[in-house]
Formats: sequence, C-alpha cells, structure tokens
Amino acid sequence: MTVRSTDHESPRPFPPGLTVRHPRPSDHAVLQGALTDWWGGQGGEAGAQQRRLLVPRLFLQHFAGTSLLVEEVEGAAALRAFLIGFLSQTDPETAYIHFVGVHPEAQRGGLGSALYYRFFDLARGHGRSRVRSITSPVNRNSIAYHSRMGFRVEPGDHVEDGVAVHTDYDGPGLDRVSFVREL
Amino acid sequence: MTVRSTDHESPRPFPPGLTVRHPRPSDHAVLQGALTDWWGGQGGEAGAQQRRLLVPRLFLQHFAGTSLLVEEVEGAAALRAFLIGFLSQTDPETAYIHFVGVHPEAQRGGLGSALYYRFFDLARGHGRSRVRSITSPVNRNSIAYHSRMGFRVEPGDHVEDGVAVHTDYDGPGLDRVSFVREL
Repeated sequence: MTVRSTDHESPRPFPPGLTVRHPRPSDHAVLQGALTDWWGGQGGEAGAQQRRLLVPRLFLQHFAGTSLLVEEVEGAAALRAFLIGFLSQTDPETAYIHFVGVHPEAQRGGLGSALYYRFFDLARGHGRSRVRSITSPVNRNSIAYHSRMGFRVEPGDHVEDGVAVHTDYDGPGLDRVSFVREL
Repeated sequence: MTVRSTDHESPRPFPPGLTVRHPRPSDHAVLQGALTDWWGGQGGEAGAQQRRLLVPRLFLQHFAGTSLLVEEVEGAAALRAFLIGFLSQTDPETAYIHFVGVHPEAQRGGLGSALYYRFFDLARGHGRSRVRSITSPVNRNSIAYHSRMGFRVEPGDHVEDGVAVHTDYDGPGLDRVSFVREL
C-alpha cells in the first residue's frame, strides 16, 4: 500500500460564526455582487464584467454539489466566501476549481484554505485523484496562494517572473497559469 | 409501457462533405475566432467579448464528450459549426446545451438541427430525459429555432413580445429566455 503525504491531510476548520452550504440558483444575484465588489476594482468595470461573465447561473444550477458558499450566521445571512467547482466529465480522475472568492474583510483568516480543503474532500468522495485550476499571471497573490495550498504550476509556453504561462489560454490577451494538485 | 412521441425521433443526417468530432483543448483558438466572427457583429466588440468569455477553455477540457465540432472535409479542416454541452451534476435527469454556433454560410442547411439531434442522442445515452438551454430575449431567431426543435419556453417574471423572460437571469442587464425539452 502506498501512503501519500496527502492521505493524512486534516480538514481545515471554518472560522467560528460561519456556515457552509451548497449554492442555489437564487444565490446568483448576490454572487454577481461579490464578483463586482470583492476584487478592489481590479481591471476596472471591464474586469468586473469579465468576472461576472465567468460565473453564469448554470454553475449554480448544474454544479451545486461541488460548489460552496460561506455565510455569516449573525443577522441577515451575508456572503463571506464562495467556491465554484465541478467534476471533469472528460477525465474521470480530475476535479476542477473554476472560481474562488473571499470577502476582503474575511481574508487571511483561513477561510479560503478551509474552502479548498472542503472541495478536496468532495472531490475525493467522487473518486477524483487530482484537482486543476487556473489563474491570471498578473495575479501574483493567487499564484503564491496556490503554491502554499500544494498546487504545482504546469509547463507553459513562456515564463513571466519565474512562473510558466500559457499565452492566450482563454482567448486573445487572456494568458493563464495552470495549476494541478494531487489529492 | 409508455411510448412517448420522442421515442421515434430519427437522427437528422449531417450535410455531405462534413465530419463531426468531439473537441480538444487545442480547438479553443479556432472556436474563439468563430465566436468573434459568426454573429454578424451582434452587440459590437462588447458582444463578441461576451460570447468569447462564455466559452472558456475548460469546456473543451472537461466537457468534450458532450460537445461537438463540425468541420469541412475538403482541404484544411475548416470549422462550420459547434455545440458545447454537458450533463448536469446536480439534476441527474438533465443535460444542458450551453452554446451553439453555425457558420453564416452554412445556415439553413439542417446543420444546426443535426447537431442538436446528435446531442439529444448523447444525452439519452447518459440516461438523461430532459435538455435545457437559454437564449437572449432579443435573439428572436434563436427563440423561433428552439420552438421548431421541440423546446418549450419556461415561465419567467415578465413577457416580451409574447415570450416569457427572466430579468437579470445571468446578471445585471442579462435577461434570458429559458427552454426545456423532453427527450
């Protein structure tokens, strides 16, 4: 029997006062608001529009079981973080994290890590041995974060600031860094 | 045993001189070009950008088995049509058609219908009994086309020109008409 280092990962607890649940289609408007507001205006209105278009309602309708919302319990439920993910239907070993957001005031408290580890558990539960994700090469925080979370960067077609990048990965001008992590 | 009318659908043949195959990630650039060029400039550059962002590479990587490309056989393979679809991971009865395009010069020849029927067969093969899709309320051709293909319009929150519409379905200003069809 091969014991991989990842066999003994302990789940990261969610910070107190928060609940985790799967999304419903009716959460879409609140999620769109988060995609507009949580990135500190990164990319201006065009950047906000781009983020919103990357999370159409279909993800909440058809990939709810591998997606997660985190809300504050106190008072009216307020969204603090979300993860949109799915199981690859082409590669039965792979799960994919499409989009993750954490409210600016809730960052650096372990909330993002707890979400990732919860998704890893969900993916393992569906027999997946690998998680993939991508990010923009300008998003240095995201690249550093994925490295800390155990992802490695896949080879690209050129290197920027020491990181392999795929030119025009998601279309003209949309370069991406591609990550993979064994489960 | 209940025999539904759709039990006896005959597959529509593809026009001669064309081949059908599942997409690969390396098809993404050609597909992005089609999303830019095939809609007659609908919505200007913003419309083209919106269409391109709706089909990130992940669909070709992870939903290839329920997506289809149609190419001309003669000479260099030239894309003539595509369908991007997937199986819902939340509702085991539902398959979803995300995006369909037919080259302007190849329209009205039955190519679109052949693609839809091929997808219906794929969906049935995966045990799905229902197909869903959406379109923009301004896209009257798409609404008429879905009706001819046996889809019915689902109730919305208001009616435009006799068609039920969901306001802000995919975000602010992104109203949508929602279709469903039994298989």
